[in-house]
Amino acid sequence: MEIDRIVRVDMTTGEITEEPAPERLRYLGGRALGATLLLEETDPTIHPLHRDARLYICPGFLGGTAVTTSGRTSFVFKSPLTGGVKEANVGGQLGHRLARLGIKALVISGASRSGWQRLDIDQHGVRLAPAPELAGRSNYDLHRQLVGEAVGARAAATIGPAGEHRMAAASVAVTDPEGRPTRHAARGGPGAVMGAKGLKAIVVDDTGAPRTIPGLRKDDFRQHVTRFSKLVLEDPRTHNLSTVGTAGVVRFVNRDNIQSMPTRNHRFGTWDRAHTISGQYIEELGATRGGKMLPCMAGCIIKCAILFNDEHGNHVTTALEFETIALLGSNLEIGPADAVAELDRLCDDIGLDTIEIGNAIGVAMEAGVLPWGDWEGTKRLLEEVRAGTPLGRIIGNGTVHTAATFGIDRVPAVKGQGLPAWEPRTLKGMGITYATSPQGADHTAGMVTARGVNAETLVKQSRHEQLVMMAIDSAGVCQFTNALPADLAAFASTRFDIPCDDEVILRMARAAIDAEREFNRRAGFTRADDRLPRWLREEPLYLPDGPAVFDIPDTLIDAVWA
Amino acid sequence: MEIDRIVRVDMTTGEITEEPAPERLRYLGGRALGATLLLEETDPTIHPLHRDARLYICPGFLGGTAVTTSGRTSFVFKSPLTGGVKEANVGGQLGHRLARLGIKALVISGASRSGWQRLDIDQHGVRLAPAPELAGRSNYDLHRQLVGEAVGARAAATIGPAGEHRMAAASVAVTDPEGRPTRHAARGGPGAVMGAKGLKAIVVDDTGAPRTIPGLRKDDFRQHVTRFSKLVLEDPRTHNLSTVGTAGVVRFVNRDNIQSMPTRNHRFGTWDRAHTISGQYIEELGATRGGKMLPCMAGCIIKCAILFNDEHGNHVTTALEFETIALLGSNLEIGPADAVAELDRLCDDIGLDTIEIGNAIGVAMEAGVLPWGDWEGTKRLLEEVRAGTPLGRIIGNGTVHTAATFGIDRVPAVKGQGLPAWEPRTLKGMGITYATSPQGADHTAGMVTARGVNAETLVKQSRHEQLVMMAIDSAGVCQFTNALPADLAAFASTRFDIPCDDEVILRMARAAIDAEREFNRRAGFTRADDRLPRWLREEPLYLPDGPAVFDIPDTLIDAVWA
Repeated sequence: MEIDRIVRVDMTTGEITEEPAPERLRYLGGRALGATLLLEETDPTIHPLHRDARLYICPGFLGGTAVTTSGRTSFVFKSPLTGGVKEANVGGQLGHRLARLGIKALVISGASRSGWQRLDIDQHGVRLAPAPELAGRSNYDLHRQLVGEAVGARAAATIGPAGEHRMAAASVAVTDPEGRPTRHAARGGPGAVMGAKGLKAIVVDDTGAPRTIPGLRKDDFRQHVTRFSKLVLEDPRTHNLSTVGTAGVVRFVNRDNIQSMPTRNHRFGTWDRAHTISGQYIEELGATRGGKMLPCMAGCIIKCAILFNDEHGNHVTTALEFETIALLGSNLEIGPADAVAELDRLCDDIGLDTIEIGNAIGVAMEAGVLPWGDWEGTKRLLEEVRAGTPLGRIIGNGTVHTAATFGIDRVPAVKGQGLPAWEPRTLKGMGITYATSPQGADHTAGMVTARGVNAETLVKQSRHEQLVMMAIDSAGVCQFTNALPADLAAFASTRFDIPCDDEVILRMARAAIDAEREFNRRAGFTRADDRLPRWLREEPLYLPDGPAVFDIPDTLIDAVWA
Repeated sequence: MEIDRIVRVDMTTGEITEEPAPERLRYLGGRALGATLLLEETDPTIHPLHRDARLYICPGFLGGTAVTTSGRTSFVFKSPLTGGVKEANVGGQLGHRLARLGIKALVISGASRSGWQRLDIDQHGVRLAPAPELAGRSNYDLHRQLVGEAVGARAAATIGPAGEHRMAAASVAVTDPEGRPTRHAARGGPGAVMGAKGLKAIVVDDTGAPRTIPGLRKDDFRQHVTRFSKLVLEDPRTHNLSTVGTAGVVRFVNRDNIQSMPTRNHRFGTWDRAHTISGQYIEELGATRGGKMLPCMAGCIIKCAILFNDEHGNHVTTALEFETIALLGSNLEIGPADAVAELDRLCDDIGLDTIEIGNAIGVAMEAGVLPWGDWEGTKRLLEEVRAGTPLGRIIGNGTVHTAATFGIDRVPAVKGQGLPAWEPRTLKGMGITYATSPQGADHTAGMVTARGVNAETLVKQSRHEQLVMMAIDSAGVCQFTNALPADLAAFASTRFDIPCDDEVILRMARAAIDAEREFNRRAGFTRADDRLPRWLREEPLYLPDGPAVFDIPDTLIDAVWA
């Protein structure tokens, strides 16, 4: 089997073609590969749901190897939410399986003319087939049928009803190691793009493929794998993540001097009931209900996924993450954890980005559509999204859309994408990243949580972290490994037997960011898009040492990529 | 009374200030004045509904004079529909009255903190007052109360429920000479901006003001007035307009070789029932029902407004214009004229742009929300807009919003604004104007209906017509006078006693267009926004001499303002 193939599926004609990745793309993967292909192949002014728009599904350049967490997958596309380039990054079992089958990029173009289709990929090839029986079905049901008992060899990537409705907040659900659809390529609407193509499910079975792809310099590669795992395991941050997941940060960020727990549509940064949605609270509940910490993909040694059961010990969700807790919890004044877990499951089932939906519902609550804290109402609203009612379609199209619908001008979004929990008024480096990332408001685009340093330093940190995250997302590893460019360089040089160091990695990352920015430029983005909404500069959060607004000057923001 | 004042109303504080127009603005009016002030005073990246956004209401530089049709008013603002500069131009009784009271620009800023307000303007001053009793009321009812019997001296500018809901397709209704709200500053959402400010109604009473403002070179001015009226009356186009209004073009543009009668969401350019919504058909109906042709403002000698009665002789509407007939009629496959007239009245009453709403409902029909031709369903939909239901809010926010809600990628809009009837695939000069006007898809921004000429010529014509229309919209006269720059120069030089010729007028127009373009540039617009939607290049209309798509090269489009 040819390794490192680009597989193209034309949904209009049903034609499937394969080509070996050309030399210039050979060492790219994940987000960088997707960005490069998108810029080369897709008209930047196209409507994101047009049949000629394309969806690039790319494992990282370490996908399929034994490097811990290296099975992450990048979904790259022109976003119906932002109108620019988007990478939605997802864990789960998909990436390793695609990579082991030698697939470096799966490119979906065209649009089905004969109803919903499924794509099956295994060692015998790639096959497209009508799948009318999958229409209208939600993710838990779908993954049970498409993966089920075969979870050891199979992974699916599916859209739920939200993707079928082509909603801008629609995700693609990827199978977790227990066969459930709890990992989501969520941000920016990949589910809508897949839905517009008429593709309901991709099922990948790597039976017969090598269990892991070895490095060309086998022994050196293996040494780096071992050394890296050791580093990760010894990192105290790993210990925290392994114990309470990302939910562990709730009690830190809810403090008066950070106020990064969005509450009441980001009006406040602390919530007096935050303890009921904290990692510690969830950990205590789990102790009596069979809760546990799981890896989101085979081979992950961090295991930050919280398996959350209800009081009867029945599974509710395996993805109760900080962003979900914040946006569907405190931001809507909904708690305790049980309530948020149920909302999370609904979002996973319907196929929705929890960050986008939490922001959209926050805006709807601000508009008076339902009261703050109305958990039952929020569940009903999510069911309207599933059903595709007018109100459901409003919410399902995200934050900006919901705000426009209800005439709300205080919109928590950058480049059309809803704000993550990390608060740009107190953690100003996050604001710089939100403003300048080609991805819009995206906390994973470059975390800068330093406080008490000057703006120039934050600008430098944001730029550096954005480059590092591009490298990490291109390797296909998890950001929680805290991999450094030098780590990735060691893997690249021994996997491909090429000269590589941290500077090469950072140059690759810069070229890929430049490709994303160039795509956005051609799509019509300007510096006016590299701005946070005005209310973040006008409405203070009140910290013990005084009011805080986002006050990084535009000139410094424009210096990030200058 | 100081003439040529700029009156500023801060809705937040209630403060009202006045200043004489500075020298550099003295000879500007209408659209050019609004564009200049907007660029100088408003942050181009502001949310259009933010309290610091501003609404500029400007009569033309001939407002208040005896020049026929010169009482038109420009509403200039950052558009919630396009995100760029917008001028919505309206006839009716408002402009002359403002001008006679010496008001050159009325600038509304801020946002009321104490509910709905009304603004009263007369010879004694400008007063803001709470008006809770006006809340929720529709335009026919409002104008009856606010103007009523006092129509000889009074005019109102009001928002209906759509403006209260801050919908992007919301208009501002202006009183016609019979006291009805049939003239609308419609395009781009001025009603939403007024609604966001908490301003429900502006009532202008010019009792005691001079009946007409004389020119400084009185006799020369009067001579030009007479000469111009004669020219207008002798023009055969005036004769057509006086007989059947703009509806007269239906039978011309419905022909096989023009196909500019949008049908089924612009999928076809002819409709087999077009005769039931044609000017001739309406004229015949009117003969037995008391239909007549009226001026939309005192002093207009063209009289293109069709007063349309029902079969019992009861008034239905006085604004059954070609664009309304096309977008709410053939585009939705709704007829005959009686049916469209009722939809038009509903839009006037609720306060909606008929072009935007016709496009939005066309998209909704394409999405299967209701069947083609469903008149009763369309009426119910408009009632949902009035009530502000979720579905009503979707439609009321216009074409692009409706398309996004329902995941439709074939969107009839340019720069966010719905397409007028004039078909860019057969009348390619219109496409050039739609693409390059700072206003988005706007047929009044520069009509170029020539066929059979080369693209370079169309580019030149579009540029010239856009400049001429800027001049006409700045003078405050009606485009149907076919006023030439030389005519406007003759009026300007004798009104203000300044040297002026056609070149001066065209330079002023170019400067104002440049101001609009600069505002858009700062708001984030690029060449990518100067494009028609891709389907107009892909989907042909079939003319007798072959298929027609919009095929003007991008390089030529970019040459319009190069």
